[in-house]
Amino acid sequence: MSGSIYDQGLDKNAANHTALSPISFLKRAATVYPDKVAVVHGERRITYANFHRRVSQFASALVKRGIGKGDTVSLFAPNVPAMLEAHYAVPLIGAVLNSINTRLDAPTVRFILEHGESKLVISDRDLNPVMKEALAAMDAPPPVVDIDDALADGGELIGAVEYEQFLAEGDADFAWEAVDDEWRAIALNYTSGTTGNPKGVVYHHRGAYLNALGNVIDFGLSPQAVYLWTLPMFHCNGWCYTWAVTAVGGTHVCLRKVDPALIFPMIRDHGVTHMCGAPIVLTMLINAPKDVICDFPQTVECATGGAAPPSAVIAGMERMGFHVTHLYGMTECYGPSTICAWQDAWDALDLEGRAGKAARQGVNMVTLEGQRIVDPETMADTPADGETIGELVLRGNTVMRGYLKNPDATDAAFQGGWLHTGDLGVMHPDGYIEIKDRSKDIIITGGENVSSLEIEEVLYKHPDVMEAAVVAAPHEKWGETPSAYVTLKPDSEGQVAAQTIIDYCRDHMAHFKAPTKVTFGPLPKTATGKIQKFALRDREKGPAA
Amino acid sequence: MSGSIYDQGLDKNAANHTALSPISFLKRAATVYPDKVAVVHGERRITYANFHRRVSQFASALVKRGIGKGDTVSLFAPNVPAMLEAHYAVPLIGAVLNSINTRLDAPTVRFILEHGESKLVISDRDLNPVMKEALAAMDAPPPVVDIDDALADGGELIGAVEYEQFLAEGDADFAWEAVDDEWRAIALNYTSGTTGNPKGVVYHHRGAYLNALGNVIDFGLSPQAVYLWTLPMFHCNGWCYTWAVTAVGGTHVCLRKVDPALIFPMIRDHGVTHMCGAPIVLTMLINAPKDVICDFPQTVECATGGAAPPSAVIAGMERMGFHVTHLYGMTECYGPSTICAWQDAWDALDLEGRAGKAARQGVNMVTLEGQRIVDPETMADTPADGETIGELVLRGNTVMRGYLKNPDATDAAFQGGWLHTGDLGVMHPDGYIEIKDRSKDIIITGGENVSSLEIEEVLYKHPDVMEAAVVAAPHEKWGETPSAYVTLKPDSEGQVAAQTIIDYCRDHMAHFKAPTKVTFGPLPKTATGKIQKFALRDREKGPAA
Repeated sequence: MSGSIYDQGLDKNAANHTALSPISFLKRAATVYPDKVAVVHGERRITYANFHRRVSQFASALVKRGIGKGDTVSLFAPNVPAMLEAHYAVPLIGAVLNSINTRLDAPTVRFILEHGESKLVISDRDLNPVMKEALAAMDAPPPVVDIDDALADGGELIGAVEYEQFLAEGDADFAWEAVDDEWRAIALNYTSGTTGNPKGVVYHHRGAYLNALGNVIDFGLSPQAVYLWTLPMFHCNGWCYTWAVTAVGGTHVCLRKVDPALIFPMIRDHGVTHMCGAPIVLTMLINAPKDVICDFPQTVECATGGAAPPSAVIAGMERMGFHVTHLYGMTECYGPSTICAWQDAWDALDLEGRAGKAARQGVNMVTLEGQRIVDPETMADTPADGETIGELVLRGNTVMRGYLKNPDATDAAFQGGWLHTGDLGVMHPDGYIEIKDRSKDIIITGGENVSSLEIEEVLYKHPDVMEAAVVAAPHEKWGETPSAYVTLKPDSEGQVAAQTIIDYCRDHMAHFKAPTKVTFGPLPKTATGKIQKFALRDREKGPAA
Repeated sequence: MSGSIYDQGLDKNAANHTALSPISFLKRAATVYPDKVAVVHGERRITYANFHRRVSQFASALVKRGIGKGDTVSLFAPNVPAMLEAHYAVPLIGAVLNSINTRLDAPTVRFILEHGESKLVISDRDLNPVMKEALAAMDAPPPVVDIDDALADGGELIGAVEYEQFLAEGDADFAWEAVDDEWRAIALNYTSGTTGNPKGVVYHHRGAYLNALGNVIDFGLSPQAVYLWTLPMFHCNGWCYTWAVTAVGGTHVCLRKVDPALIFPMIRDHGVTHMCGAPIVLTMLINAPKDVICDFPQTVECATGGAAPPSAVIAGMERMGFHVTHLYGMTECYGPSTICAWQDAWDALDLEGRAGKAARQGVNMVTLEGQRIVDPETMADTPADGETIGELVLRGNTVMRGYLKNPDATDAAFQGGWLHTGDLGVMHPDGYIEIKDRSKDIIITGGENVSSLEIEEVLYKHPDVMEAAVVAAPHEKWGETPSAYVTLKPDSEGQVAAQTIIDYCRDHMAHFKAPTKVTFGPLPKTATGKIQKFALRDREKGPAA
């Protein structure tokens, strides 16, 4: 812009430029809504003024222990107030929040603590047996603060101080300094890692701020929002809803465990308006025992991602008073990047029609710059024909800084100036994307590509099927053949033959796509609740030599 | 952060960092909602796909005429599609949009064109008589594109090309390059300048993006939003709603002129959900002839700023189906910075109670970093007692870059690292600010500070008063005394005595605050519809020597 009149004396200064940070949301909410309930946890109520005060104490206590800029603080806890508070207190002092997946085993937890160079661990008593084992294996384990939550089931205390005592060490008048750089790391989230060691995804303040506002806009949060924490906060910082709900001054309703017997009365009693969760959460709600399900007057907006919600799930949820929105995202893009934005014209469609539209992952959120389906080699767009499969790539301010201490993986992920998701999909003529599979999940049978998701969609429609996953099995003649793994609904266990399932599939799709094998039983899952297809593929290969 | 593990190989790149710009909203809306009506203008309907195409042509046509980065393009038009399109096409190529207040006279328009170094003027036929005079006085007048709007009343064509022909010169496939720097100037808006030459306020892409999203969140825009353009787009780029409505894929309903006979049927026929305007717009709607007012089923959210809406106005608007939200802002902060966020507890108050709450300007919008009431000399906070008057100062990313070619004024505005608004107010104990007056508008009588706004609030409650303004008149004994200028409602003209008004004030406030003089008649206004108190003050001083 050199030489332009707009380059003369119009520079950044303290009045007109501040680093974007979601910390500002709590500062504002405590000013605007000091007496409003910010956090519900069991019988506890924390107002926004109190939330602010506790975060001040928390940040002050961290500083007193020598934690500072660029230091990693690890949290190992379910959705309790301490987790929410950590989302503000840790980045407030320039430190980096590392929320560890609570379903991981001790060796993986140890790997994360060592790789992330954690300076302090804050761990829930229920999870301490795993944390204790992880720390015991470390040469220089970080100190531990215990969360002795009243709603915990058991566990043990392993730290030198309990969280509430730790807060009491801090100063409630701790001054909130402005964040000095919006590119500063705010969070370190490890991928669940279906193979090999997990990778540490680094978020910055700018991206967290923007994805939080994107959630507010695209999921329609208002100051009246009551958000039920059915999504783990350790999962992409709760898809950034840890910050988004605070941005509007809504209410966070904590939940330690996804249990329909808890969820239904909480929806009714707290007037829940919004929640998020993996499809399995929706399936659990639909298949909950009748005496657990209760009525509520409001419509609850429910966002789900990770797999397309089958039409039966959408219908079941609608019957109970939920409205389901399909999202797509991944750890590398702060949770949701893509949303199946509803079109008014779809209202006129029947259930199958609506489910078909909603099965697509959709369009980029307003805060993501762009998404494309491309040939991953040439980076050329695939035709928007709803058929040609390519790789989904993303670009924008809500894409990670990269993988911690892993420049090769970072470079590979950003090849060509876009984030490579590794997910394969199509671009529909209306600009909506639809994920067809992870590259590994395509089954090539007789030279034809078959999407395992397409077969699973049919399986989910069978009235006796609760969960299903399809992988490729080696086949002498066709190269590969689809093999289905199925969990039946509790009442149907042992009542359905494999051939019945195969016949049902053949009746509802091209014969060459139908599975030729069906295995009943529980499905192996990752720590984030995703079905571990690699484990099923391993079964198909037989025992290792 | 030097030395931290987070500083190693986690840099900005094309995949994870893009300049914030409201241009991205149109790109997305055209993808997500291509067939949706983006713009309504009379009988015309422009879909988002078409909006995008026209902006491409517009940008291309500008480039073909040699307009480029850092060049100023001036618009002189009412709220017509060309104005909206300019909000995207001009900044898309790195040029700067200068929307000129349509109520200005030719010498001031000439001053702006010269000071802003305008390279091209796009001017509506109705306004061309003024533009022609302005250009005739220039040594090197810029070329003119005429807008020959079908809904224009008269005027004339003065340019070499008409807007639609100009668009046709452009390429509909013009490639949208990414904005290279979010600090780049996007708009140049001149203050209305109650004294002296207007100052050119420079906005950047980052601030426009953020204030647009702030509007979406704090005013509750959704994809179903239908926004009626009762606010001039030349006014702080329509408070950034030119971009905000597009961010959600809502519908812009254009309006050349604020006329209740047009507005009421448009609200009904287009299903308007949101609108903004100065208090005078609300007053016009309330006092519209009975046969002009029509019913509509929806509640229309109506934001107003510039002066507190009196309780009678709030009540009158509510009766007709509007919900009024009070905002505060100024040219220097992209329009709204501050909003009277509603508290649930206020629902239980009576009309006077609610109006009292809503009369406050409120809290900073979510996208503004902070606001304070301070002693302008020491920058110390005044006590939050609702009584101690100080200056409102603002800070954040939605504060201007500065005044064009006016470093002294820029430095003065940013003294102490905050934007000095020049508005005087109080901080209430609940964190809401209330503007008491412009510094010039405080009347000091007998050593007591009296707010002219407080007197005006009383005057507005009188059943015969339509508009009122109070200024200081010199007084031998007390130094100054309040002098009221009043416009009576049409039916009351000539029916009310000055003493009746004075007595009414004395009955409703401390006697020393009541006006001692009342003058009836129309009030002088600035081009943006603000009452020109300086003109009234001049009258009090008598003819200049």
